[in-house]
Amino acid sequence: MGNPMQNSDVQKALVSLPGWAQNGPAIEKLYEFPNFVDAMVFVNKVAELAEEANHHPDIKIVYNKVTLQLLSHDSGGVTQRDLRMAGRINELGR
Amino acid sequence: MGNPMQNSDVQKALVSLPGWAQNGPAIEKLYEFPNFVDAMVFVNKVAELAEEANHHPDIKIVYNKVTLQLLSHDSGGVTQRDLRMAGRINELGR
Repeated sequence: MGNPMQNSDVQKALVSLPGWAQNGPAIEKLYEFPNFVDAMVFVNKVAELAEEANHHPDIKIVYNKVTLQLLSHDSGGVTQRDLRMAGRINELGR
Repeated sequence: MGNPMQNSDVQKALVSLPGWAQNGPAIEKLYEFPNFVDAMVFVNKVAELAEEANHHPDIKIVYNKVTLQLLSHDSGGVTQRDLRMAGRINELGR
């Protein structure tokens, strides 16, 4: 658990996290894949990472589109933990 | 593709589809699991079924909670195809 960050600090951090943007109290990234099977392969990679880090993004799958949302529910906003997780997800590539 | 069903007909069909309810133009079911790993096991079963049937529910995963939504996008509502898919998902059990 950590304190939620100021919006301005989140914005600064997002500069180095391509594809992530603020959405309300969370940060969010939309991925688009050629098809559903490829989307699910990616979701399973994210799931493995999330379980390992014990920090689980909300995941929405609409056929070939996957939206990930990260926030620290116990802090009520975005923390360093979310930014670290976003960074690790970005390292997965597509 | 098929014609969207009347709400009253959807309601009648839902009587034999435990857990499914109408939500706007879709039918929806919420599953709750002991943890994220169990939720993902279920999501992968649904994904396999969806790919096989070429009819893909929208899937939302929030840690141990999975929400499935079915609608026929090309018909703009619920069709027999959605009801069949809901039935097949129910046969998966938890």
